[in-house]
Amino acid sequence: MLRFLTAGESHGRALVVIVEGLPAGLEVTVADIQEELARRRLGYGRGPRMRFEVDEVTLQSGVRHGRTLGSPVAVQVANTEWDRNPDKWQREMSVAAEDGPTRIPLTQPRPGHADLAGMQKYGFVDSRDVLERASARETAARVVAGTLAKLWLATLGVDIVSHVVRIGAVAASPGPPPALADLERIDADEVRCGDPVASAAMVAEIKDAAKEGDSLGGIVEIVAHGVPVGLGSHVHWDRKLDALLAGALMSIQAVKAVEIGDGWDVAGRRGSAAHDPITWDAEAQVYRRTSTRAGGLEGGMTSGEPVIARVAMKPLASLNRPVLGTVDVLTKAETVSFKERTDVTAVPAMGVVAETMVALVLADEVARKFGGDTVAETRRNRDGYLAALRDGPLG
Amino acid sequence: MLRFLTAGESHGRALVVIVEGLPAGLEVTVADIQEELARRRLGYGRGPRMRFEVDEVTLQSGVRHGRTLGSPVAVQVANTEWDRNPDKWQREMSVAAEDGPTRIPLTQPRPGHADLAGMQKYGFVDSRDVLERASARETAARVVAGTLAKLWLATLGVDIVSHVVRIGAVAASPGPPPALADLERIDADEVRCGDPVASAAMVAEIKDAAKEGDSLGGIVEIVAHGVPVGLGSHVHWDRKLDALLAGALMSIQAVKAVEIGDGWDVAGRRGSAAHDPITWDAEAQVYRRTSTRAGGLEGGMTSGEPVIARVAMKPLASLNRPVLGTVDVLTKAETVSFKERTDVTAVPAMGVVAETMVALVLADEVARKFGGDTVAETRRNRDGYLAALRDGPLG
Amino acid sequence: MLRFLTAGESHGRALVVIVEGLPAGLEVTVADIQEELARRRLGYGRGPRMRFEVDEVTLQSGVRHGRTLGSPVAVQVANTEWDRNPDKWQREMSVAAEDGPTRIPLTQPRPGHADLAGMQKYGFVDSRDVLERASARETAARVVAGTLAKLWLATLGVDIVSHVVRIGAVAASPGPPPALADLERIDADEVRCGDPVASAAMVAEIKDAAKEGDSLGGIVEIVAHGVPVGLGSHVHWDRKLDALLAGALMSIQAVKAVEIGDGWDVAGRRGSAAHDPITWDAEAQVYRRTSTRAGGLEGGMTSGEPVIARVAMKPLASLNRPVLGTVDVLTKAETVSFKERTDVTAVPAMGVVAETMVALVLADEVARKFGGDTVAETRRNRDGYLAALRDGPLG
Amino acid sequence: MLRFLTAGESHGRALVVIVEGLPAGLEVTVADIQEELARRRLGYGRGPRMRFEVDEVTLQSGVRHGRTLGSPVAVQVANTEWDRNPDKWQREMSVAAEDGPTRIPLTQPRPGHADLAGMQKYGFVDSRDVLERASARETAARVVAGTLAKLWLATLGVDIVSHVVRIGAVAASPGPPPALADLERIDADEVRCGDPVASAAMVAEIKDAAKEGDSLGGIVEIVAHGVPVGLGSHVHWDRKLDALLAGALMSIQAVKAVEIGDGWDVAGRRGSAAHDPITWDAEAQVYRRTSTRAGGLEGGMTSGEPVIARVAMKPLASLNRPVLGTVDVLTKAETVSFKERTDVTAVPAMGVVAETMVALVLADEVARKFGGDTVAETRRNRDGYLAALRDGPLG
Repeated sequence: MLRFLTAGESHGRALVVIVEGLPAGLEVTVADIQEELARRRLGYGRGPRMRFEVDEVTLQSGVRHGRTLGSPVAVQVANTEWDRNPDKWQREMSVAAEDGPTRIPLTQPRPGHADLAGMQKYGFVDSRDVLERASARETAARVVAGTLAKLWLATLGVDIVSHVVRIGAVAASPGPPPALADLERIDADEVRCGDPVASAAMVAEIKDAAKEGDSLGGIVEIVAHGVPVGLGSHVHWDRKLDALLAGALMSIQAVKAVEIGDGWDVAGRRGSAAHDPITWDAEAQVYRRTSTRAGGLEGGMTSGEPVIARVAMKPLASLNRPVLGTVDVLTKAETVSFKERTDVTAVPAMGVVAETMVALVLADEVARKFGGDTVAETRRNRDGYLAALRDGPLG
Repeated sequence: MLRFLTAGESHGRALVVIVEGLPAGLEVTVADIQEELARRRLGYGRGPRMRFEVDEVTLQSGVRHGRTLGSPVAVQVANTEWDRNPDKWQREMSVAAEDGPTRIPLTQPRPGHADLAGMQKYGFVDSRDVLERASARETAARVVAGTLAKLWLATLGVDIVSHVVRIGAVAASPGPPPALADLERIDADEVRCGDPVASAAMVAEIKDAAKEGDSLGGIVEIVAHGVPVGLGSHVHWDRKLDALLAGALMSIQAVKAVEIGDGWDVAGRRGSAAHDPITWDAEAQVYRRTSTRAGGLEGGMTSGEPVIARVAMKPLASLNRPVLGTVDVLTKAETVSFKERTDVTAVPAMGVVAETMVALVLADEVARKFGGDTVAETRRNRDGYLAALRDGPLG
Repeated sequence: MLRFLTAGESHGRALVVIVEGLPAGLEVTVADIQEELARRRLGYGRGPRMRFEVDEVTLQSGVRHGRTLGSPVAVQVANTEWDRNPDKWQREMSVAAEDGPTRIPLTQPRPGHADLAGMQKYGFVDSRDVLERASARETAARVVAGTLAKLWLATLGVDIVSHVVRIGAVAASPGPPPALADLERIDADEVRCGDPVASAAMVAEIKDAAKEGDSLGGIVEIVAHGVPVGLGSHVHWDRKLDALLAGALMSIQAVKAVEIGDGWDVAGRRGSAAHDPITWDAEAQVYRRTSTRAGGLEGGMTSGEPVIARVAMKPLASLNRPVLGTVDVLTKAETVSFKERTDVTAVPAMGVVAETMVALVLADEVARKFGGDTVAETRRNRDGYLAALRDGPLG
Repeated sequence: MLRFLTAGESHGRALVVIVEGLPAGLEVTVADIQEELARRRLGYGRGPRMRFEVDEVTLQSGVRHGRTLGSPVAVQVANTEWDRNPDKWQREMSVAAEDGPTRIPLTQPRPGHADLAGMQKYGFVDSRDVLERASARETAARVVAGTLAKLWLATLGVDIVSHVVRIGAVAASPGPPPALADLERIDADEVRCGDPVASAAMVAEIKDAAKEGDSLGGIVEIVAHGVPVGLGSHVHWDRKLDALLAGALMSIQAVKAVEIGDGWDVAGRRGSAAHDPITWDAEAQVYRRTSTRAGGLEGGMTSGEPVIARVAMKPLASLNRPVLGTVDVLTKAETVSFKERTDVTAVPAMGVVAETMVALVLADEVARKFGGDTVAETRRNRDGYLAALRDGPLG
């Protein structure tokens, strides 16, 4: 229902995204998008590019006089380096054959990157032909799409929050999942962690890793509030919402693990301590679970409780010291891969990308469950569903 | 390219699966399917149904004189209880309106199951209308589809193996990923664990949990050998093979977490210890990685190394003792959910289902990368690709 | 949203269809399906198979006590010849390798059939490996799926009717599109034609062609009544309802042309005589068109007027006299293709298949526009939409 | 496999298209795209916009140093009026809410356009919110995507040609389908018709219609040469190539009918004159058909003969004289719809769009049948297939 394609190379002219399937009447501004893109640049330990980068956003279609038309929304995020430093990238990434390769090709694929597999798959000798697209820069285009999904979800009272719960060896102390009201405070934290003590230790860990020319991974938790019961379905494997979320989250660059609710941990428990008891809240006239072990998902469907997922990111594979062995694909000579000046960790920013992917999955399910070609129509259908639940035999 | 739909309720007449997109000329027998279905019933701690159950398989279409026709393959797995015990299920699950509901409806949704969310989403008062389809019985239909995918992959030298690495609190000691040659020994083990010491402890754990009327979850590792470099792609988020695998694995009933390679653990390491160095094997004329941290996937593509994933399953939500609180949806009275005689754990069998899902994802990518309408054509295209790699500038 | 896979060979054990995406609560009986299958066998000029054939329908899943569960609906249509005449087909179409080929392979592909292209694509020497699946027998499985779609549409007041407007050289005289009330009379006609004079001439034409061992094609018109305004969309090429209808109708065996509304004819008119003026019906509070030139579709969307399409079928390629030249693929010897005893025309039956395809497309769009997991929810959303149209600024 | 999304409103800032799924190594230049866009503006009887319009094309991603990277290709076609005439459109089509509606809304939907249905579906009072996207200007974005598909097909020897065979009442005399060598001559003709006598009559017809303020439709024939046998498939309805072509062609703005081969006409013939006899060309070692009645498609698959389709376009619904009745949606007052200065016919240009849609469908099927991530790999797989056909039992 909601589909989107992203395009663009890391140092190319621009990133482009087209989102098809949004309802008409959704209020969208360029500032909304820029704000989310700015959140994606957050985090202590980002390299110089993040600080320089200002995302020049152009809404190219699908929005008129402040609200969507139902037609595909195209957004361009220009590469500001492109015009500022034309000698560097306009030739290197030129689309024209006559601009040819200007430098010696990158023939030493970096371990932990798409480089070697991509060169083999697509027949390239220059790993730049792979890395420009494999780069996490692409996630900026996803964040644009995610902003649109979030704006739509917000009209239904659905909000998505993320926070960092681990960087390298430092874990935040466990606590209740953050609410929308906590987001400003989380974003203001240097590593987007809600636990100030852990945050300080994370920053120290980043400094230490930076000193050693090393990088750090970590874990992010994403929480969606206000999600109505019954998104996703148990009836077919590829309609299970946990499957859709896991796929979307695992698609983020450098992510290597995904869990729903207590996930990994619950595999070691006994059944009597692994599930969420059901109660009836007579006041609010809704069913509740007295714990959050399932992460708001049972049988591939939302239960009405907050949806909770956690995502593990490996340390960046670009290091500041020469330690990862590789070979030159042309000479087969052994060498090492390293790069001066790079980010130490991208975990805080990854949380924003993870929110984006959750938003896109949920928005797609909203479209499927409630239909609707306008914001008002979808909301009316959602209201009718909730009222029927309340007034029906189960309510 | 490869698509399949499964149908069937747990106690209905039959499970049915249609697989569309297989090449012509693939050798398939009913025995191949029955053998995989028998593997799905393996494991100490399964309840009585698993022992009684014999899967009556009928190949209904798409295969003639022992090999596929390229047309959709339909397979029916009859419910053997249906005919044996007609009074019990033929009326309860009858398609005819006149057979009406014969017993009082199940109005006490079980925590940890699809029951309540499904009843709310689909407007049911009787949770049987949900649980019959949400049941893990459905995975038998997937195993049928997976058998076809495995048979095709085998013609390309791709094999998939799984083993249990944790049940409840008991973990197997770490070791190298198992090979195809290990599968017979693993399947012969009571809990499909390759570590005999751990296996014995797992069985003890199962006995202990059984005695207490409790259930157990666990973790399975799946390994695919012989996968050529370059399946999946870095170019778009929904073409990344790790994303596709994560979605497929998370779709298995009761699975709550998925990791690729060192996954979860790697988030706590530094970059210098998190990636797989690249070397050139001059003998075999292929690139190798000197470790398996990435699980054979870099940038969303296979690297040519074994593909390794791990999957965590929560304990079964049907317990033998009354501990999980719930409510009656009609009266709102508080009660507890339990069931006499049930499986203690399904982790060993889940490994076979996980193999299935990995096989289906890989077969789909094989179709995409190599094309081909016959087994011979796909293999010829694969051979041409590998020869071009060997003879090209990178080889 | 609504997806279905069909499987089964013409003389195999059974046809199988799985339909995924239907709402819960839809009333379905085996008799509903049998009735539509019987309509598919209508028409003067059908061969002996049609008269013998009784479709043994088994609803295998997705329906309990007379209404759908939201889970996939699997239906099997057994080949009654399979058991009645086991020596003939059970060996010829056996899935077992040991039953081998029992007769000399069919090595003379028939012109106008899938035979030769299919043999080349899929690597077969025996054209039976192609023709068994390419046969129009497969449309029985579609009719099953279409019955479910029609039942759902009927809950929304949408009905689909077809009638024959040409067989061979004989055309019905033009008239208004038939309504649901006309269907019984049309089905009772020997060639499903609403014009008695033309019907008699068509039967004479069929007799004449039969005498000469020849076959006949023709044209069918399909009309959908009660379709709400706004199904389909102008915003993207692959969401245009006319495109979806054209693809679905052209997929029917032997169909070679499709038109919407006045279609082909309108290309020769001037613009002033080619479009449907808009008026406001103050009584009914709806917009109307004063003509039906557009066939109820403007800009890829339904206008609220009846949806009208016409479909042209080529004459059957199996003739009763030896006139179509072909070659033996093994010897390359020239020969002719013919078959004793065959249908003269299948146009009346094709209309029922065309209704089916229109129903499946419309049901899919209903799911997309209105969402809903139960029949009641979809209807409520549709009602809300129509009420908003009436009460909004345009109403 | 090949997917693309288009975005952009007719008078908005730009059209944007992203094409995902192209192989790496395809040579692409901006000039290639501009040339096809220029062909789309051809034809006597186009209005002033076509003459002024110069398409400013920017290749934004997916191409580096003259060839594709396998990553998504994004192309922007700027609206040259946007900068040249900022007061007119930059405010009217501004994305910013503060630019509000500057003129009275268009509340009189035009018959024969998407206007009214779109306003009702999407909740608009101003028909500009619909017509900007429904406009045939969108086909420029498709032509961009089609150029890429054509370039890929050309590496496999597949070429696509179109020509006008009817405008209004004037039909070209029948002749053999044009070849690639004829395209330059066809494009040079004022109405893209290969028959000079008919061309002159068509121009006269256009002049006459123009004088009367009327518009004209017509028919275009598209021919694809060099298509290998076996694209598409008989095994499932939605894999039949004729179905895919019909859907793609019917999606073109104002198209109301599609036929394959002799299509419509063949429905009136007898079977003995309706099919293409098969022969063996011992010289070329290929099977041939001695006629082109089937349009190169049998059983939903290409036969190896030229693929031939015809498409009927209704007259443009924007007329130069006040004849089409409509109502004001706010007042319900009756009025007439017309527009000063408009195109008389777009049939010649539509042929180029139709080529585009055929190219996109064929390229998708090439990807499916032959796989491949580089131009060389797909070609190698195609060569292997053709060699196997030649050397196999049928060759």
